[in-house]
Parts: sequence; C-alpha cells; structure tokens
Amino acid sequence: MDLNALATAHPDHWSKATAIRALTLDAVAAANSGHSGMPMGMADVATVLFERHLKFDAKAPAWPDRDRFILSAGHGSMLIYSLLYLTGYEDMTLEQVKNFRQWGARTAGHPEYGHAGGIETTTGPLGQGISNAVGFAMAEEIQRATYGKKAVDHYTYVIAGDGCLMEGVSQEAITLAGRHKLGKLIVMWDNNDITIDGPVSLSDRTDQPARFRAAGWDVIEIDGHDPEAIDAALTQAREGDLPTMIACKTHIALGHAAQDTSKGHGALTDADQMAAAKAAYGWTAGPFEVPAEVKAAWEAIGARGADARRAWEERFDTLPRAKRETFNRAYRLEAPNKLSATIKAFKKQMSETAPKLATRASSERVLEVVNPILPETVGGSADLTGSNNTKTADLGVFDVDNRAGRYVYWGIREHGMAAAMNGMALHGGVRPYGGTFMCFTDYARPAMRLAALMRIPTVFVMTHDSIGLGEDGPTHQPVEHLAISRATPNTYVFRPADTIETAEAWEIALTATETPSVLSLTRQGLPTVRTDHKTKNLTAQGAYVLADAEGKRQVILIATGSEVSVAMAARDMLQADGIGTRVVSMPCMELFAAQDEAYRKRVLPGGPVRVGIEAAVRQGWDQWLLGERGKWGKADFVGMDSFGASAPAEVLFDKFGITPQAVVDKVKALL
Amino acid sequence: MDLNALATAHPDHWSKATAIRALTLDAVAAANSGHSGMPMGMADVATVLFERHLKFDAKAPAWPDRDRFILSAGHGSMLIYSLLYLTGYEDMTLEQVKNFRQWGARTAGHPEYGHAGGIETTTGPLGQGISNAVGFAMAEEIQRATYGKKAVDHYTYVIAGDGCLMEGVSQEAITLAGRHKLGKLIVMWDNNDITIDGPVSLSDRTDQPARFRAAGWDVIEIDGHDPEAIDAALTQAREGDLPTMIACKTHIALGHAAQDTSKGHGALTDADQMAAAKAAYGWTAGPFEVPAEVKAAWEAIGARGADARRAWEERFDTLPRAKRETFNRAYRLEAPNKLSATIKAFKKQMSETAPKLATRASSERVLEVVNPILPETVGGSADLTGSNNTKTADLGVFDVDNRAGRYVYWGIREHGMAAAMNGMALHGGVRPYGGTFMCFTDYARPAMRLAALMRIPTVFVMTHDSIGLGEDGPTHQPVEHLAISRATPNTYVFRPADTIETAEAWEIALTATETPSVLSLTRQGLPTVRTDHKTKNLTAQGAYVLADAEGKRQVILIATGSEVSVAMAARDMLQADGIGTRVVSMPCMELFAAQDEAYRKRVLPGGPVRVGIEAAVRQGWDQWLLGERGKWGKADFVGMDSFGASAPAEVLFDKFGITPQAVVDKVKALL
Repeated sequence: MDLNALATAHPDHWSKATAIRALTLDAVAAANSGHSGMPMGMADVATVLFERHLKFDAKAPAWPDRDRFILSAGHGSMLIYSLLYLTGYEDMTLEQVKNFRQWGARTAGHPEYGHAGGIETTTGPLGQGISNAVGFAMAEEIQRATYGKKAVDHYTYVIAGDGCLMEGVSQEAITLAGRHKLGKLIVMWDNNDITIDGPVSLSDRTDQPARFRAAGWDVIEIDGHDPEAIDAALTQAREGDLPTMIACKTHIALGHAAQDTSKGHGALTDADQMAAAKAAYGWTAGPFEVPAEVKAAWEAIGARGADARRAWEERFDTLPRAKRETFNRAYRLEAPNKLSATIKAFKKQMSETAPKLATRASSERVLEVVNPILPETVGGSADLTGSNNTKTADLGVFDVDNRAGRYVYWGIREHGMAAAMNGMALHGGVRPYGGTFMCFTDYARPAMRLAALMRIPTVFVMTHDSIGLGEDGPTHQPVEHLAISRATPNTYVFRPADTIETAEAWEIALTATETPSVLSLTRQGLPTVRTDHKTKNLTAQGAYVLADAEGKRQVILIATGSEVSVAMAARDMLQADGIGTRVVSMPCMELFAAQDEAYRKRVLPGGPVRVGIEAAVRQGWDQWLLGERGKWGKADFVGMDSFGASAPAEVLFDKFGITPQAVVDKVKALL
Repeated sequence: MDLNALATAHPDHWSKATAIRALTLDAVAAANSGHSGMPMGMADVATVLFERHLKFDAKAPAWPDRDRFILSAGHGSMLIYSLLYLTGYEDMTLEQVKNFRQWGARTAGHPEYGHAGGIETTTGPLGQGISNAVGFAMAEEIQRATYGKKAVDHYTYVIAGDGCLMEGVSQEAITLAGRHKLGKLIVMWDNNDITIDGPVSLSDRTDQPARFRAAGWDVIEIDGHDPEAIDAALTQAREGDLPTMIACKTHIALGHAAQDTSKGHGALTDADQMAAAKAAYGWTAGPFEVPAEVKAAWEAIGARGADARRAWEERFDTLPRAKRETFNRAYRLEAPNKLSATIKAFKKQMSETAPKLATRASSERVLEVVNPILPETVGGSADLTGSNNTKTADLGVFDVDNRAGRYVYWGIREHGMAAAMNGMALHGGVRPYGGTFMCFTDYARPAMRLAALMRIPTVFVMTHDSIGLGEDGPTHQPVEHLAISRATPNTYVFRPADTIETAEAWEIALTATETPSVLSLTRQGLPTVRTDHKTKNLTAQGAYVLADAEGKRQVILIATGSEVSVAMAARDMLQADGIGTRVVSMPCMELFAAQDEAYRKRVLPGGPVRVGIEAAVRQGWDQWLLGERGKWGKADFVGMDSFGASAPAEVLFDKFGITPQAVVDKVKALL
C-alpha cells in the first residue's frame, strides 16, 4: 500500500484513522497482549462509519434510537475502545485505554457488554456478534412497527471478520436476515485474507459475496481503505430494502512490517517496527498521544448526533403517554404491575382445577395469560412450535409484511435463535423467549453462555427434558443438560414439577433483569402436585417442602420436575410402611443456594437419609445429598448414568429404574 | 403427483420404492411414533442409489472399501431400516422393523451407530450427518493416497434435509468440502419445501444451489421421483472432481393425504389414510409384507456388490504385508506395539529433565514422538495451530495436492471439525485429534456428545483451559467446561498436571476404542511434578497419591492440571507448620470412579479434611470432597464461581484466590 497516497488524498480522514492505529499499537504494546492488525486494517471503514453514518451521541450512550454498532470480530477490541475514547464516551478515558486488558479496566481483552457505553454486546467468540445483530435488527423492526418511525428508526452496523463468516452460526444469522429482509442491517466484512493459521485460503475458498446473495442480501465490494468508496457503499446500503454486506478489501496491520500476514493478526509489540509504522503513517505524536486537533475532530463526531438525539426526544414526547410508559418500562426491564396478580390468579385456578398437563403445555397456558399483558415479549421456536408450545394466539407472526408480529419462526437454527434472542435483549424494549428441545441446548450453548456472562434475561424454553420424551431416543434425550446449564454461572435453571411451578418459574424469568433462564419442561403429562394454593412464589426460594413427613422424619426425598410426582408416590408407599418421609421440590438449585442457611436447613435438616430423584446425571446433586447435613446421613440418587434409549416413556422410566418402587428400595437400603 | 404415471413408467423401480413406503407406514403405525413423510418422499432417490450406484455387500457390512451411506436426515430412520431389511443385512430382520422404536430393538427412533450393519453414523441431531460425511470423505482421500486405489476407492453418499442445511454446522461442512474439493462426496438434498412448522419459506428462502456453488460445489437439480433423472445425476456426480449436491425436488409423504404438508413430516398413523395411500401405490400386500418377487429384487441389490468385494479382497492381498498389517491394525483400533515403550521412554526422559512447560507444549512433545509411530493419526486445529500445539513436523498438510497429508487446517469451524473428526473415526483406519480453546467446547458440543454416544475414540485437544489464559478474558476463559465434559457419559476428561501426565493421558486416548477423550491443557507453563519415574500409567487409575503426608495425615489436597503445583506448594507450607498433608493428583475423574472401592479408599481415606483445587466451578467435585469419607470430615473447594476476567494470568489467580496461601487458609479454617 502506498500510505503516502492515502494520506495525501484524504488528509483529514487519514489523521483520524491513524489515531485509531496508533492507539491500537500503543495499547497492545503496553499490555504486551492483544490483536493489533484488525483495528489497523479496519480503521478507515470505522472512521467513515462513525464520521458520516452512525447515528450516536457519545454523551448519551443509552439513547434508545441510536444506531447500534457491533464489533463481531471482537478480538479487534482496540478498534472500539479507540473509537469510544476518541469520540468522547465519558467512561472510556485515556486511562482505560492505557490499562488495556488489565485487572479492573473497562478495556477487557474482548469487548464486554456493561463495561462501557457504546459496547452493545460482548464479542470475541466468533460469529456471535453478527448473529446478535440479527436480533437487534428484528427488535428494531418490531419496535418501529409498534411505536412508529418517530420513536424507533435506526440501523444496526456490524464489523465481521473471516472468522465470523466461517463459523456456522453466521450462516444461520445470514439466512435469517435474508429471509426477513432486514434492510437496516449492514455488515462490513473485513476481507483481509488472513486468519491465525495463515492465508484464509488454507482453510476456506468460499465466494462470500455469492454466499450472501444466495441468502437474499445485497452485496457491495469496495476498497476498504478508500474513504469515498466506504462512504458511497454505506449510503447505498442504507437505502436498500435488503440487508447489505459490504465486502471491504483491507490490509491487516496496514503499514506495519507484519501487514498482510498472519503475524499481523496478533500482538505487534516490536518497538522498532511500531516506530516504523508510525513514521510511515506520518504520525509524530508520542505513545497514547493524540494531537489536539485530531482529538477535537473526533469529539465533534461524537457530538454530531446530539441534535438528532434531542429531536428524537421531542418527537418521543409527542407519543401518547401510555405508549411512552410502556416503551420506557420495557427498556427498564420492569414488569407491568398486572403481572404478579395475573400469575397469582392463574395459580389459584390451576391449584383448584389440578390439571394433568405436560409442563410444556403448562408453559403455553402461562404464556396465554402473560403475553397479552406483556407487549414486550417476543416468542419463537427453532422449528418446534407445536412441540415447544411457545406460540400463543395473540402474538402474530413476525414477517416482512407483519413487522409487529411477536412470534418468530426461527427455523432449524437453535444457535442462531439463541444469539439473535440475546441481540433482542441487548437492543432493549423487548423480552425474547424461544424454544427447542432440551437436548439441543448443545447447539445453543455458545449463546446461552454469553447471555449469562452479559447478564441479560434471555429465556430459553427447553422442552422434552428427559427420557420422558420416549421413542425419539438418546440422540434427543438430555441427560447431562441440566448439569451443563447449572454449571454455568448466573443462570437460572428451572425444572418445574407442575403447572403451578411453571407459572412461578415464568414469573421469575420474566421479571429477571440480569440473569437468563432455562425452563426445562416435560413432553409427558404430569399431575398437579401443588393443589394447596399459596400466593407466595415458592419457586423463588429454589426448593421448599412440598409434603412433610407424617410421624418421625426418617427420609427426605428431593426431586425436580417430572420426578416430583415420582417422589410423592414413593412417599405414599414409605408412609404406608410407617416411614416418615418428607418430599422437597427443588425447581431451581441456584435460587435455593442463594437462600440463607437457616432456610436451607429448615428445608433440608440434618439427620434423615436423603435420596435425590431426577431423570438426569447426578452431577450437581451431591451438594444437596452430601452437603449441609450437620452430621453424617446416608444418601443416594435415582437418575441416569447413560444416554437413554428409544422406547415409550413409561418403559424407559421402568427400565432405567426411575420409579416410586426404585426410590423406596433405595431408601430402605439406606435405613 | 400422478402416481399411476410413475408406477407405469418404471414398474420395477416403483415396486421397490413402494416397499420402502409401505414398510415405513406400517412401522410408524405400529410404533404410533416416528416420521413417515421423509422415507416416503426419498424412497425413489434411495432406491436408485442402492440399486445402481452404492457399492456395498449386505452380507459384509464392515468391508472397508464399501461406499458409505449416511442418512443425515436421521428422523427418516425408517428409510435406512427399510433399505437394510430389504437388501438383506443379517441383523436387520423383519422382527426389528416391526419393533421400530421399541426397547432393545436395533431400530431406534433415530439411526444409531453400532445398532446394525449399514448404519455408518448416529444421526438425528440435524446437520451432524452431512458434517460427519466430510470426515468420511477426507479419511477416504487420506487412505487412498496412503494405500493406493487398489485398497481404497469409494464414495460417501449423504441424504440431507432442509433441517440439515439450515443448521450452521452444515455451512462449516460444506465450505470444508468445497475447499478441499472432496469429489467423492455426494449429497442428495431432500428438497421437499416442508419443515415441522410449515413450509420452508416460513423461515428460509436461501437459494441452496447458489449457496453450494459459492462454496465450490457442483450442483445438479432434478425431479426426485424420476428414476432416470436420479440415475443420471448420480452418474454425473461420481464423475466430477468437486463435491456434488443433487437437489432432489420431492413430495414429502408422497401419495398420502398429508403429502406436501408439515403434518406429513410426522407419524402418519390414520388407518384409512394409510390404506388409501397403499391403494394409490397399487400396493396390495398386508402390513409388513413385501411380495416375494420384490424382496428378491431387493436382495439381489444387496448381493450386487459381493463380486466387487471379493475382487477388492484379492487386490488388497497383493499389497505389501506391512501395509496390510498397518491398514488392518488401524481398522481394529489397535495401537502399534511400539507405543507403550515409546511413552515409557518419553516419561523417563521427562521425569529426569523435569521441563517447565505448558501442558499444551507437553502435548506437542508427546505428539512428536507418537505421530511417527502411529501413521493413522490425523491432527488438526480450528485455526489455532500455534496455540493448540497440534502440528508436528512429520504430518504433512492435507490438501488438494497432498491427500496423504495428516494435518488439517480446519479453519474457524470448531463444530464442523468435531463432527468431521467423528466421521473420520467412524470411517475407520484413521485416528483423528483436533484442537481449539477449551472454552469453545461450547461450539463443538453437539458433536462431542455424539462421539460419546457412538462410542468412538475421537480426541479433543482443548488448550487454554482456565483463567490461566490471562488477558483474553472471560469470553475465552472456561470455568464450566470441565464440568460439562465430565457430565457427559462415556467421556474421558483428562486434565494433566505436567508433561508426564500429559503423555499418560495421550496413551489412554490413543488406545481407547470406545470412548472419546477431552485433553484439557494449559496455556501457561507448569513445573514437572512427577520427577520420580514410574513406568506404570498412573493416569489410568484416574487419581493417585502424588506426595504423601509427612507425620500424621491431617489434610488431603486433591487437584488437577495447573492446580496440582498449587497444591504441592500449599503442602510445603502446611508441612512447614507441622500439618501432615497428602496431595492427590486427579487427572481423570471418570477413570478414578471406575477403580475398585479399595483403591479409591487408599487414595482418599476417611478422616483428614479435604480441599479440592481446580480453577473451575465446583460442580462435579462434591463426590470426592463430601463422598466416600467413611465418617464425617470437613471439606472445602478452591476454584471459580464466576466467569473470570481480563488480566495477566498471575493477577487472575491471585485475585480469584487460587493460590497456595488461599489453600492453606482454607485448610486452617477447617482444622
């Protein structure tokens, strides 16, 4: 590259873009860690985007109608940190940039949601950002249709690298965006021909423009170092009705000795090479220094959107008050007042009628009463609508000609669904939930982990949650997936026993502000075990005494979900033999662990033998079976230690020994 | 569809294809469960494939040079069961077909590897089969280049549905196949326009032929009910140098009232509708009956390959004896005799030189001595070759012009890599291992579970296995992934403490025949803790006493991987205070759990306080901390309960309290 020609052709642009490159070199060198090449390669694209297109106000990072900028290639985190610092985001100080990748800094190795304004999502695991972006764009469409263009009218911009495009989840995202003609989604592909292992061609020769066109996208191919070409492409992209991919031909680590090499992907810390690169840029400022006029130019960009933001505020104020209140309430993640009363009334009715229902059907009944009073919910399923019971009559179907529809047919895309739901939650104003089979937690895992890490309340409706799904067999029978979700920090894993607990779990999931929820629901019908109505949400305590021992308490059976009724039947048999047996229902281990010790000991006092019952692996149970007993008490577990099998559900429960009789036998062996 | 015209145009074909449809209807009806429509829609394609193209011998299902047939759309399992029964596979009897989806039957809900000859892989989780197929085709290329066309020369055929093509992993598979010009891979897409939720267009409008072409495939579009068109397409596909996708336009549930509807996807059990469909086919046989002449025609197809198989055996016998022995040994999953001695010599050298190495570097050293004596290994990495340390000098790189290369640059495709490695292992003759970061277990999960379910010894090399990776931060720091892998039945999870244990873990992984292995390896350097050479593989016992208490044994520290040296340092401090402390290294919980009780009690006797140390969540540890203690002993755990943070590794261990001092403090609090 002839840097001099670039600098001469567009001197103002060049100095601004060079500030990004210089800060990146300095921060990575100070940390002796990080990824220099990507910010250096995409500095021109990012500069033009921020200067001429992105609608934002650095002083109001949470402005709801801002454009969203997502750095899907999260390893290039110094790109976004530079942009936020340069444009004047208040929490992105020079000190933060100097502390890149250090303990306590906002400038984590990869951009983390919540660390600073302007970081719209956590990226780094490749393919996630571009898939979140689909959810952002869908949420924008839904809100625009709901509240009108006065209130909502913005774009979602993504910078994605070769890694994002190679990850399978990006295909799910791209095809969703194409199917739904998400015209306000614009992806800038950093087409630099380099991955960590070497040239992209080592592992991939995909014709990316053709691939995107096949998915229903517009594609524009440009020189990613030519500001006018970048500007024209962004202008064209904004005008189109389809999502647009701008293929930006760039040089990774532009101007550095490592330019166009895989070495350029990593940390470029050699002092002489850094000096040479800066000299080539014509950059004479010292480390972490940005000349005042360059900083001023960037800050003007950061302030550029203030007028638009104020105009939006004025427009927003003209909306009917009820609309504004709902809009703001949803953005604050506050439930409407009616929710609590609605759940209570529903519980009362269910405890009185005591239906026998699969908890997936219970879940549908809850949604039927909840969705009408929570206009912010957006439901969906990964092509298992009838099985996941996620669709209620009032939602309408999100589509090109029905943007206000609140139900998404996600197709066979569990991972893309989960990542897009995260994007919706991050966008704000909507509360996404979506379903698949519990076993396919495996497909959605990377996004489920990120929901927990980002502290966003995405709801994963996971039905067919054990061998109880029957004939579909071990490929579809979760045995380790409760343990997997429970092992993940900051995740509520609910396994409700009946319709009442399902309603309680939904109430917690829909009022959560910082924690995603996994609802583990049965395919098979279950009796109502909570026939005694309590207004209190007992599931919020994680576990509680469902039925106490009659006579001397010799046994505590602890169970979840479909196995609570197994425990109740075992209790009947044990009590008939004069063995006092308490049944503890434990719909949420995380919430039980969060109770104070006194409550936990009240529910699980030391002394009696304990048997845990769950049609899943034992991992995660020993804390309740072996721990907190005060003194030595014997314990055992009734569950699964293999992958299940293909047969009718009742046969499987019998063959795998998850029956009241098996529980009784284990108890008697312990006594 | 005018069934009569189809029947009249190709009466012999029609009767054979109808046998599949009739058996499918009967089996699904008997089970009252399953998926009728797909086998009914793809019966014509499958019939032509088996009759005129697939090289197989029903009496010799394990013949190494057979063509492989993979039903990626595994829910259509009655298609393959019908084919295997009709062509005369001995273990697929009519009894089995009648017991479709019942306890103990080979005819599981979805096809399961190992249940019957001719089932090459377990499918059902969508996208897996087509991704396995890439590994099958790669293994064939590698073996053909290694042993010559005389010994290896076969195709891999896949039937995939819309679900497979929507799953992101299929994009990873398709682009890999295109990149590597896997010309002997042929995918038949069941293009029936239907998913469970409704028409495909509800959720997808991808131009699939364009998508495949963008990835470097040939595409042929045909009427999937026209036998001549099917035949011509397969002939053309076999001749090309590129992988070929044949888009087969079909009618799901052909001839049934539910044809071309999403209802047709599921179980079609209505007796009248079944009778009407059979009448429309002109099928007058009773349930599960196949007219003798039709069965005979099918059995002739099953025997069609016997001559080719015998000819292959004769050709194979002309290979040099050493080649034949290596070929057969690898197919039997037997390690060469030299392996054990090589590992012992390596361990001796390492215990004498006691290098300070990251276990990922230890792993590379092991591979350097192992790969030259195990020509069946095929290594690789998902674009982290230099970080995963998976490449050794002798392997060569698998490429279009170097088919004998044994190292695969998988690109940023963790899921596709894992699924393709499974395919390689299933193909036979090769032993795949591949690397990514431990945290990206999340991406590879669906395939890792299937390796365990299928009982195949795929090796997952997972480096950067804790906060010890440092500055990349929580998006890249696994904390729950050891628990996730350990929760999965039939999986060895190795977390070696040093180079010696790494060598022992590799020895077990490379001699395993029925269990996949996860090697959890550090980024950061670790001291050698096993400086006292033992020829015995101590890791094979799962846990062992690394250093016993001096004086009265008051404390047992149990640790894995990088925390074993933390435990050793804590032991030094405790012993200095006169507190007798044993250190137990526990590189593999699963193998320790498999030891007899006497050994477990010798290693972990009751009495002393126990502290577990692992830079990960506690889940999975309580069985060792709280269980099997004989009497009440106090216990605690030093590890992680959050997602980590971005900072240098040593800062993180200090901030998260995973240090010798923290261990000492916890021990003293317990004593």
